[in-house]
Amino acid sequence: MYHQFTNDYSESVHPEIWKALTDVMSEQNRGYGLDRHSQEAERRILSCFGIPMGAVFFLGGGTQTNMTVISFLLRPYEGVISCDTGHINVHETAAVEGSGHKVLCVPNRNGKIDAADVEKAVRSHADEHMVKLKMVYLSDTTETGTVYSKKELTEIRRVCDKYGLLLFLDGARLGAALTCSGSDLAPEDLGKLCDVFYVGGTKNGMLFGEAVVFSKADLAREFRYQIKNRGAMLAKGFVPGAMFERAFDKDLLYFSMARHANEMAELFVRLVEGSVEFSVRSVTNQQFLRMKKEKAEKLIRNFGCELWTDEGETQVIRVVTSFATKEEDVRSLADYIKQIGG
Amino acid sequence: MYHQFTNDYSESVHPEIWKALTDVMSEQNRGYGLDRHSQEAERRILSCFGIPMGAVFFLGGGTQTNMTVISFLLRPYEGVISCDTGHINVHETAAVEGSGHKVLCVPNRNGKIDAADVEKAVRSHADEHMVKLKMVYLSDTTETGTVYSKKELTEIRRVCDKYGLLLFLDGARLGAALTCSGSDLAPEDLGKLCDVFYVGGTKNGMLFGEAVVFSKADLAREFRYQIKNRGAMLAKGFVPGAMFERAFDKDLLYFSMARHANEMAELFVRLVEGSVEFSVRSVTNQQFLRMKKEKAEKLIRNFGCELWTDEGETQVIRVVTSFATKEEDVRSLADYIKQIGG
Amino acid sequence: MYHQFTNDYSESVHPEIWKALTDVMSEQNRGYGLDRHSQEAERRILSCFGIPMGAVFFLGGGTQTNMTVISFLLRPYEGVISCDTGHINVHETAAVEGSGHKVLCVPNRNGKIDAADVEKAVRSHADEHMVKLKMVYLSDTTETGTVYSKKELTEIRRVCDKYGLLLFLDGARLGAALTCSGSDLAPEDLGKLCDVFYVGGTKNGMLFGEAVVFSKADLAREFRYQIKNRGAMLAKGFVPGAMFERAFDKDLLYFSMARHANEMAELFVRLVEGSVEFSVRSVTNQQFLRMKKEKAEKLIRNFGCELWTDEGETQVIRVVTSFATKEEDVRSLADYIKQIGG
Amino acid sequence: MYHQFTNDYSESVHPEIWKALTDVMSEQNRGYGLDRHSQEAERRILSCFGIPMGAVFFLGGGTQTNMTVISFLLRPYEGVISCDTGHINVHETAAVEGSGHKVLCVPNRNGKIDAADVEKAVRSHADEHMVKLKMVYLSDTTETGTVYSKKELTEIRRVCDKYGLLLFLDGARLGAALTCSGSDLAPEDLGKLCDVFYVGGTKNGMLFGEAVVFSKADLAREFRYQIKNRGAMLAKGFVPGAMFERAFDKDLLYFSMARHANEMAELFVRLVEGSVEFSVRSVTNQQFLRMKKEKAEKLIRNFGCELWTDEGETQVIRVVTSFATKEEDVRSLADYIKQIGG
Repeated sequence: MYHQFTNDYSESVHPEIWKALTDVMSEQNRGYGLDRHSQEAERRILSCFGIPMGAVFFLGGGTQTNMTVISFLLRPYEGVISCDTGHINVHETAAVEGSGHKVLCVPNRNGKIDAADVEKAVRSHADEHMVKLKMVYLSDTTETGTVYSKKELTEIRRVCDKYGLLLFLDGARLGAALTCSGSDLAPEDLGKLCDVFYVGGTKNGMLFGEAVVFSKADLAREFRYQIKNRGAMLAKGFVPGAMFERAFDKDLLYFSMARHANEMAELFVRLVEGSVEFSVRSVTNQQFLRMKKEKAEKLIRNFGCELWTDEGETQVIRVVTSFATKEEDVRSLADYIKQIGG
Repeated sequence: MYHQFTNDYSESVHPEIWKALTDVMSEQNRGYGLDRHSQEAERRILSCFGIPMGAVFFLGGGTQTNMTVISFLLRPYEGVISCDTGHINVHETAAVEGSGHKVLCVPNRNGKIDAADVEKAVRSHADEHMVKLKMVYLSDTTETGTVYSKKELTEIRRVCDKYGLLLFLDGARLGAALTCSGSDLAPEDLGKLCDVFYVGGTKNGMLFGEAVVFSKADLAREFRYQIKNRGAMLAKGFVPGAMFERAFDKDLLYFSMARHANEMAELFVRLVEGSVEFSVRSVTNQQFLRMKKEKAEKLIRNFGCELWTDEGETQVIRVVTSFATKEEDVRSLADYIKQIGG
Repeated sequence: MYHQFTNDYSESVHPEIWKALTDVMSEQNRGYGLDRHSQEAERRILSCFGIPMGAVFFLGGGTQTNMTVISFLLRPYEGVISCDTGHINVHETAAVEGSGHKVLCVPNRNGKIDAADVEKAVRSHADEHMVKLKMVYLSDTTETGTVYSKKELTEIRRVCDKYGLLLFLDGARLGAALTCSGSDLAPEDLGKLCDVFYVGGTKNGMLFGEAVVFSKADLAREFRYQIKNRGAMLAKGFVPGAMFERAFDKDLLYFSMARHANEMAELFVRLVEGSVEFSVRSVTNQQFLRMKKEKAEKLIRNFGCELWTDEGETQVIRVVTSFATKEEDVRSLADYIKQIGG
Repeated sequence: MYHQFTNDYSESVHPEIWKALTDVMSEQNRGYGLDRHSQEAERRILSCFGIPMGAVFFLGGGTQTNMTVISFLLRPYEGVISCDTGHINVHETAAVEGSGHKVLCVPNRNGKIDAADVEKAVRSHADEHMVKLKMVYLSDTTETGTVYSKKELTEIRRVCDKYGLLLFLDGARLGAALTCSGSDLAPEDLGKLCDVFYVGGTKNGMLFGEAVVFSKADLAREFRYQIKNRGAMLAKGFVPGAMFERAFDKDLLYFSMARHANEMAELFVRLVEGSVEFSVRSVTNQQFLRMKKEKAEKLIRNFGCELWTDEGETQVIRVVTSFATKEEDVRSLADYIKQIGG
């Protein structure tokens, strides 16, 4: 049986994170995220992102985080702008709308939202007969593995400032975004450019858990009420606390896990380049291959690749690497692809 | 001062409706729509639309009606398909999303939703990570004054049946749709093709009021609870009851008011054709003119026309006729347009 | 057939209001409450309540108003305190909860909420595992026709100030409250003591309509978005505008209509006192009689009185007078009661 | 430092559960609860509760579960009956109301809801102006550690059947309820009497996780959509899957963990009986002591007991045992109490 490249949440947890959890087993801790692990994790994360006056909260998963944050910051008649391929728009079963808010779509540009499109959307929503646009949502990496440059994110921030919008960055795969070879974004840039973002644990070596980071603690006032109201308050908050405490320890395991996943993806690209068509030029741990249908089906069957888009004769399938992917796994996959032909 | 063509709700009420209301002044009636006027109005409407087993409820306005009906028929994770220009998508300040449901857009085709686009949308929403599509929303007339043919509506119904979708028709301007010269839809067709639709009073000669019609009363079970829960239950329900009772009396005033509005629009088109560009080939009481900016501004200033789209050098403005528009008003407007040049 | 005492919304509209509406028939007006009648009505209401820096908006009905205002002012995890008999708690089909907010009950004291109970409730809701209490809701007159004294309302205001609560007064029957013989509240007191209140038209001589009054316009910023988002924006906003404009004209018809209803109730009390038991000492236009079951049923059948509480052998029924009740109607009812015996 | 008796979620996980999680570390599993561990756990739970035609889903925590289940089963205008001390009413920051539904309170009887009170509530909610009552919510053990007898639960079921109500049992501490010495409820009884209930993991030896059990799979149709829509879908669903799989293995660790906690509480009661006053006769792992203020404060400081009710001179504090409490810990606490005097 081959290693599966289905997604980056097929494996449970990185061994170093596991060790941290083991240490917690012999302890008693305060509930609801008021424990010392969560506090230390918060301190480390704020330090890493250069925002000592910020605030951090640990939630369970990505959709929950998006829904909880967005419905916290918006009034009932306010909406959030996302590109059409955005996770909140497509893959969250309308959780944001379920909490009462419109997701207004603008077209994606290589998986990303564009500052000019944001400006256009705001200007065309001029009065009280239309939703009031109050927030920009984007994810980095995007749904197709692309990343924002510092310039792109700065430009979006500029539009947000101009029109009084909040900027929220979904970092379910933030580790991959910040450690990929093409990236010019430093953690400190996020702290400066975003009002709120989250640092994803589920897709980067943890059992579960997302760290919501508010760049200014003021904006997070009463956020614990919101967490509870949305059913997102964890009784054993020290579990994600201990995982993030470890991931943001001095060795910054969080980033080395992500970097490894990216490197495995790069290796894969190098090995198969020329033998197969990539549908997107992703620079991170998700890669998208366009193949003849019968070949795609073989990959899906043997390596668990996910069918991304069914184009009829051809199909786009997704290959995902993770903290747990080994070089030999990648080589097996690449050999197989070269053997069956692109 | 010229007659204003801003919209079809600038005037209060048709004289015949007024007379009906006057008669009610000397009466005492049961509250909450349980009065005899509302009952008689229901009977007349069901008879007109050929659905004696249906049920009718009177609400206050269009957005309220859309939000109340949609959130009644959908479960929390279900969404409604609309074309991008749909009223619920653009002009209701996210009221549908505010009640917890996603509005999924498909591109409009001449202001209308297309059966093939509906089918494509449903097929691309395949599992529980995406919103479950359960309803098609459309308006007739559309936002740009176009109307559905019997064939188009039948085709949409077919897709609804195939995929278990409900069909909801927003009839804020239903009178205009059914009485325009191009229409091949009879009231009975609506009763057969739609699960629920509403017959708009606000934009057709009444003080306010929309009659929600369920083609089968079964689907409306407990709808009165929903009406109250959404704040839409009128204490003096006999007021819209009496207005609709009159409008659907033997002379079908409802349709003659709308026909008059359409005829005034047709007259207008005939008078200015060739002198000015129409941006859409509307066949009903809303007409859209593309003009040089300074000319558009004159029309707006003098005749209250609404700026519809600002295209920079040119602008699209809307001209709306109503039950209260007189032939001489139309002639004044047409003369003015011809005088300033298209 | 006798005059019915079922409620104060059995009749359509006061003749003077009707005249005002007749004048509007020949006009064209701007939509959505931006017309000159609404503006003048706002000016007159603010002047009457002594809050020139306030803001007024016209909605359709009471439940709608309560739900729209409460969900506008509260964040998702915040709740509103009401006494157990409060209209939002009992008679609105959970519309407030439907908009996402808890109604926290405290026991009623003669139909009213008590400052000490409010304080106790707030103090027992101390952390983020419980709803955050942020508003006090009360109605004047109450559900049982009692009224707040200036002292009582001032005391509640004091607790609100102490704990940062908003004070919202439901004035569906505000006219009756301010004009009853026992009242020591002046309109200006409401302007001073409440953050927001509404002036009910539906139950006081208008076709429909409630005027929401914010004592400081600042608190109402973006409220028009909220109105639309809740489906409460009236296209022909000039209709309630014109009615309130008339009701708050120099002769303050609003209060004389209510005073008349109260006087008819007082007359009724005088006429039957001693012959029948009153279950509550109401001082306004709702009166509650406790009677043997078979006598109660006769009153219900003949005079449309509403069954209020079924106590088995005895029943409490409600008698409501209105702007339209005539002295002779009251005398007929009183005679009948004395005839059948209390 | 003494062992803390703050709550039953101070410790992370039982060693046997830990072992099961360790085994999963070397695996790759399908996401979103579609893995084989979750499937086997479902099979074992359904077998244990005697409902092979049921369905099981794993969520993250109690408030999330209550909110997700309740808003799945109710229509917008429907409400849920709870006793006043119910968790959803007091300790969930209005999460149920936040999802749009009223929690209607009836008085608790020794922490429990009573069938007669349910019947009375339903009968007094007769028409569409009041919330439609559609569900009974109760927790076993209750908030004060009491448990339902088979007779009590059967009686509530009878009322539910009579009025068409759903019965939902919150089993955050279900293990404690079913294994306490007084209990006459077998797991199979729950399967028969409840429409839906949940089996709590967070408070019984797991890192997190609650197993929602529908007695008939039909009622759960499309529940996975609901889970995702409420942000409760876990990417690594195999983590709770593996924990519950282990807890419901042949040795039924789930119940032995709970039984241990109960036994430690019983031991505690035996040891201190006569030396201290119990405010409630709890038979499970939560015990409530009434003490003089200064003594209570000592216990709180040293043993982490939670202040439950501040009665002024006296205070009620809560002592909670868990799977991890050792006999020696209990003896230390008992000795301390006897030493300071009750």
